[in-house]
Parts: sequence; C-alpha cells; structure tokens
Amino acid sequence: MDRKIFEELLSAREYKAVRSILNVMNAVDIAGLLSELEDKELVLAFRLIPKDKAADVFANMESSLQTNLVEMFTERELKVILDELFLDDTVDLLEDLPANLVTRILETVDREKRNQINVLLNYPDDSAGSIMTTEYVDLRKHTTVAQALTHIRRVGIHKETIYTCYILEQRRLVGIVTAKDLLTMDDDVTMEEIMETDIKSVNTHTDQEEVVRLFRRYDLLALPVVDADNFMVGIVTFDDAMDVMVDEATEDISKMAAVNPSEKSYFDTSVFQHAKNRIVWLLILMLSSTVTGILITRYEKAFDVVPLLVSFIPMLMDTGGNCGSQSSALIIRGIALDEVHFKDIFRAMFKEFRVALLVGPLLALANGIRIMLMYHDAALALIVGSSLVATIIISKLLGCILPLLAKKANLDPALMSAPIISTLVDACSILVYFSIATAMLPQL
Amino acid sequence: MDRKIFEELLSAREYKAVRSILNVMNAVDIAGLLSELEDKELVLAFRLIPKDKAADVFANMESSLQTNLVEMFTERELKVILDELFLDDTVDLLEDLPANLVTRILETVDREKRNQINVLLNYPDDSAGSIMTTEYVDLRKHTTVAQALTHIRRVGIHKETIYTCYILEQRRLVGIVTAKDLLTMDDDVTMEEIMETDIKSVNTHTDQEEVVRLFRRYDLLALPVVDADNFMVGIVTFDDAMDVMVDEATEDISKMAAVNPSEKSYFDTSVFQHAKNRIVWLLILMLSSTVTGILITRYEKAFDVVPLLVSFIPMLMDTGGNCGSQSSALIIRGIALDEVHFKDIFRAMFKEFRVALLVGPLLALANGIRIMLMYHDAALALIVGSSLVATIIISKLLGCILPLLAKKANLDPALMSAPIISTLVDACSILVYFSIATAMLPQL
Repeated sequence: MDRKIFEELLSAREYKAVRSILNVMNAVDIAGLLSELEDKELVLAFRLIPKDKAADVFANMESSLQTNLVEMFTERELKVILDELFLDDTVDLLEDLPANLVTRILETVDREKRNQINVLLNYPDDSAGSIMTTEYVDLRKHTTVAQALTHIRRVGIHKETIYTCYILEQRRLVGIVTAKDLLTMDDDVTMEEIMETDIKSVNTHTDQEEVVRLFRRYDLLALPVVDADNFMVGIVTFDDAMDVMVDEATEDISKMAAVNPSEKSYFDTSVFQHAKNRIVWLLILMLSSTVTGILITRYEKAFDVVPLLVSFIPMLMDTGGNCGSQSSALIIRGIALDEVHFKDIFRAMFKEFRVALLVGPLLALANGIRIMLMYHDAALALIVGSSLVATIIISKLLGCILPLLAKKANLDPALMSAPIISTLVDACSILVYFSIATAMLPQL
Repeated sequence: MDRKIFEELLSAREYKAVRSILNVMNAVDIAGLLSELEDKELVLAFRLIPKDKAADVFANMESSLQTNLVEMFTERELKVILDELFLDDTVDLLEDLPANLVTRILETVDREKRNQINVLLNYPDDSAGSIMTTEYVDLRKHTTVAQALTHIRRVGIHKETIYTCYILEQRRLVGIVTAKDLLTMDDDVTMEEIMETDIKSVNTHTDQEEVVRLFRRYDLLALPVVDADNFMVGIVTFDDAMDVMVDEATEDISKMAAVNPSEKSYFDTSVFQHAKNRIVWLLILMLSSTVTGILITRYEKAFDVVPLLVSFIPMLMDTGGNCGSQSSALIIRGIALDEVHFKDIFRAMFKEFRVALLVGPLLALANGIRIMLMYHDAALALIVGSSLVATIIISKLLGCILPLLAKKANLDPALMSAPIISTLVDACSILVYFSIATAMLPQL
C-alpha cells in the first residue's frame, strides 16, 4: 500500500476506503504502514482497523509507537486491545513502557491476568521464562481424539499455538500430541496411546540460547517450560525462538566488532548510546596497543640504522590481525552452533597450525617476490618472510585458543575476536620481527 | 543415551534391548548417537530402528554418514527409506552424494518422484526452489471444513506440513487456510469463506535471503512458492527457513572475517580447504597494506628526527581499524536485518560523524594524559590527539559508507568489513598523522 495515497485518504476523511484497505491488508504490513504516520493520524488510522486485527497490529509495532498509542487510547480502547493481546506480547509491551503507563495497564487488566503478567515480568532477562507464554492447550491422558478436537475448538482460538498439545497429570507434563496426530488419528483413540513421551523441555531459568539450540536441533514448533518442581508453566513458540536466534547472531556480530550489543535497531539507538556502546572497548584496546608502541621504541636503534624496517610494520600487523580474526571468527561461530567444544581445543590447534603452515609460506613468498623486485634485498626478504610465518602461526593459534578458553571460563567467546586478537598479535609480531632482524642484520 | 552402553549392547547382540532403546528415543537423538558409531555398527544399529522412524533418523544424519549408509544398503532397504523420505530431504541427500550413488538412487525411485527430484535439483543454489518441497495440502474454494479435515486425514500423513493448506484454482494459488481455522470453524463453512487472500509468496528463483526475511517478518510456518506462470509449485517450511537463517548469519560472520564461507562445519572442512578459503583475502589485504608501508618510507626523515613518532603508529592504526569495524559491523547487520537501506546513507553518515565527535576527543584526551605522564611533551600529545580524532572520523565514515555502497552495487555488504576497512584506514591514518606532524614540528 502506498503511504502517500493512504495519508491522503485519511486527511480527506475517506474512512470507508481506509477501512476497506485495512480490511484486506495483513497485520504486519498494517503495522509497517502505520509506523510512518504522524501521531494524530496514527491513532485515527488505528481506530479504523477491523476489531479482530487491532491487537495483532498493535503487537507488531515498535515499542515507541506502542507507547504513543497507549498514551492516546481511552480506557475502553486500551481494555479491548489488552483483552485480545497474547500474554507474552503484553509482557514485551510492559518491558518497554515508562512506569506510569505500566501502572495504567496493570490497572486495566483483570486480576488473574495481572498475576500472570507479574510472574512473567519477574523472570531474568534472556531466560526461557521471559520469552514464554502461559497460554497453551493442555489435555489429559484419557482424553480421546474427538474430545481433544472439541476442546480445541472451544478454547483454542485464544491460545497462541494449538499445534502442539500438552498432556498433563497433576500439572506435570507426561506427553505431547501434535495437531497433526489429532487430525490424522481415529476419533476414539486416547491421548495416552498416541502421545510422544520423549519430551524436550526447559526450565524457566534456562538461558534463551539453549532454548534456540533445542528449536534448531529438533525442528520444534513450541517448547514446553517447566518450573523447579517440574510443573508445566508455559511454552516458547517458534516465532519467539526465531527472534531470539536473530538477536543472538546480532549480539555476536556486535561483540566481535568490540561493540556492546544494543537491543534496539541501528537508527533507534541514540548517538550518545552508540558512543557509550563503543567507547569502553576502544579505550581498552587503544591503551593495550600502546604496549606495541612501547615495544617499538625499544628497537629505535634498529630502524635508525635500517629505516626501511619500519615500513613493513603495517603489513605484519595487518596480516597477523587478519589471520587471527579468521580463525577466531570460525571458532566463535562453531561454538555458537555447538559444533566446536572445549574438549576439541588440541584438535582445533593442530588444524590451525597446519592451515598456518600452508598459508604462511605462501604469503611470505608473495611478499618476498615484492621485496626482491622493489629493493633487491634478499636478507630483508628473509627477515620479513620468516617474521610473517611466525606471526601467522601465533595469530592462528591465539585465534583458536582464546575463544575456547573464554567459553571454558563461562565468558562469551565472541569477546575474543578480531579487535582483542589483533592487539595481542601486534605486540607478538613486533617482538618476533625485531628479534629476527636484530639476529640477522650484523649492523644492528 | 550413553554411547558406550549402547555399543556394548550392540556387540553383545542384545538386539531386543537396542530396539527398545531406539523405540523410545526421538529421531534427532538417534541420529546423533549413530553418528559416533563405526561403519559396521552403524548399519547394524540402523537396521534395528523402528520402521516408522528410520527415514526421519536418516534425514537427520550428516551427509558423510548418509553416503556410507547408502553404500551399504541393499536395494530393498534403500527403496524403503526413499519411499518414506520427504522430497526436499531426498534432494538434500542427492546434492551431497557422489555421482554413482546419485544414479543408484534415481534408479530406485519411481518415475514420478524422479521427475520431481530432477526439477528440484535444477533450481539454482540459494533459491527458494532449491529449498522447497513439492508436498503440501491443496484444497478447492468450495471444499467445506468437514471435507478438508477428511482430506487431510487421508493424505496428510505423507505431507511435510499440514498446518497451512493452500486453496488452488486452476493450479493458481488464491487463498490460504490454516489448520487452526479448520479446527475451530464449523463443519459446513467453505474454504472460500474463511481463506486469507492477502498471500505472501515467492518465486522459485527468489533468493533464500528474501525467503528468510518473509518468514521473520510474518512469523510464517510455511511459504508458498510459485513459478513464472504463477502456478503453485511447492512450499518452504519453517524448519528449512530456520536453517537458512543460521547459515546466512554464519556466512556473514565468515565474510566479515575475510574468509570465504564454507557450507561444512569447522572440523568437517579440510585443512587444505580452510587454507584455500582464507588465502585469497589475506593476499589481497597483505599487498594492500604494503601501500601503508610505502607511505611510511616517504616520512623516513620525520622519524629519523623524532623516533618516538613511530611508536604511535600501532595505536593509531589499531584504533582507526577498531572504530571502522564497529561502524561497518553495525551497518552490515542493519542491512541484513532490513533496518538500514541505501537511501539512509546520509542519515547514517551524520550519525557516525556525531558518534566520532563524541568518541574521538575522549580517546585523544586519554591518550594525551598518557603522553604527558610518560614524555611530558604537549606538542606530541597534540599531534597524536588530533591525528586520532581525524582517523576516527574517517574510519567511522568509511565503515558506514562502504557497506552501503556495496549493497547498492549488488555486492555483499559483509565483504566491506573489518579487514578491508582496517587496511584503508591504516593508509589514511598514516597520511594524516605525518602531515600533521610535519606541519607542527618545526624541526621536520
């Protein structure tokens, strides 16, 4: 839908046309369209959305827009939306709202819902509890397929997902039946006969990374969440798992570039927040790289005698840094995907060592040819070449050891990536380079 | 299940116990367990898996194990597996098998399936066609809910997903009905009355990145795929979309570390292949960074007079590189998540410029204090500080401009990340640094 035409229809008060348009569009696209409107137009357009779609559109909006809408809603409008909103979407909304609006919302919902919301709000960030919903279809062992279908038909429309049904016995989860089973089995079969009992579930405090790992590994649509007493308390649905998956990758990419991850999108993050997210690592890395500078001053005499030596410093530092980043990126990703574990550390080191032995001499050769062509100096080519090989071996090894050690120490492996490794490799390469140069050049 | 116990049971020929164990385990975990066995034990254990699970276990195995199994299977066993295997899993299998085994498999399946497989195999890599399955539930407009349920009950068990049903009219897709609709609507309602007509679909040649974008945006379970004539040809299911999502993030992370992405996991990639994936970029970057080295030689006189100048080179280069990586990582991820577009380039530049103005002076100050403490040299602090600020501004701008330009030129923005940007920033920082130094120090 073209935004301009939509805005013109709105300001021309062609509400019937606007309603028809909103009637055929889906909730996600309506949310996208509305997010480009001014506040006044926004609330006007929102009121024209068909009742059965309004809550869905609301759930798909950015939190800043949700805040604006909640501020402008009447009590009645707010109540209608909150009644329709899924519980986990309500909790997401509350997490981003200013305190006065949170109070207003908690006053609007009924007591039972308020209690559920309060429980969900109290789960730690990034835990399964914080992304689950307490709405799901539960059945009993002796329920028949026909009874189950009738039950779903009655309550199912209010449940976020009905495709996986949970068989409970005294609130404990004993089996799972899928909607596919219900649709393809005979009416008089009981749940006990068809339920899957090899159940994957998580605890309310399980980290959301583990939740995502289970979704990926078992191609799940929903994952049950149990509390400390093994009582079933909710489910995580695949759409939320997909969001977490994307967020985790974003977080890793940020950390690998020495940026504290932000939950907001690039443009939604303020300049000040961007600076804050970046300055700490920059400062640490800058001060660490002065160590390399100080090392260089120790070899002042060397480049006093052979000034050309200085000109190879950037090449050595860059190549070392790049080699280290390559290894660390692959290892960090391997850890995130559960393909590389700490117990593999020696296997990984041996692999990186052999890669370095292939890559190093090749690069040294290319560089040697360049030096011979430009300076006709075989000694120089040998010094730079052997420093290069040594640097590459060191950086490939550091690139694979450090993320694995971080993992072992329960730190995020993504922190041990390009920036830190480059800084470490810099110091090593300078030491190696000038040691070799001092040893090989008689005049130093 | 403990692998050792399982192996002992196998070698003690306790097949009844093994069968019982395999009976309660789920397919994914069985695949994991079997992948640790020797070839002989593998085929033995595989034969003990309950019939209804065998194909599912097979589909969840790594391609190297699938190859081994196909080689050891009898004709009959192969046929049983292939009959049960979903079409998209069969195609995945064929893509990784050696040619002689591909022929053997194509000879085993019936003609209709062979034709479908050949069509699927011909779609370009990374296209929607290459990840779709041609098995889905299709219904007509006038079908009633009761008829639809009966139809699903009859055919559904063989379809990969039955939760979204497609309403076709002369092979063209006109509507979508979910299993939730079918389960909650009255028996005599027709598809036409309840179908959603605002359909998201893709073409067989649509890039899989776009497929994933649609899954994420609309929280889909399945996405219909149409051909050039708008005839419905298949669906992509959410589990495959999830895999693509993970693969795309891995690919971006690899490229951002100057590694050609590999489809295999870290340890499954050979040392030679690892070296091959890394050497090209290393070579390009190494030769580019020699430009910085050559620039340095132009200022030989300067560090001849003030040798201390050299010691700040690593700090300047590293900080510039880190600042550039931070910006480029955020912009690249923003582009991948569809949050940052080329049209935003000036907005992004302005944002990065302001971030640089916050971050730069702070770092310069920290560095200035260090220089004053160590060398008591205000002129040096000023030279290094102003070079630092200039370098940071340049690198933040390059970090946001280059990925966006790459996107505009239809290149992968992930290529314009840390390694390339560091190399470019290095040269800039050296130029700025020595120009400022030459201008400010009278003795140079």
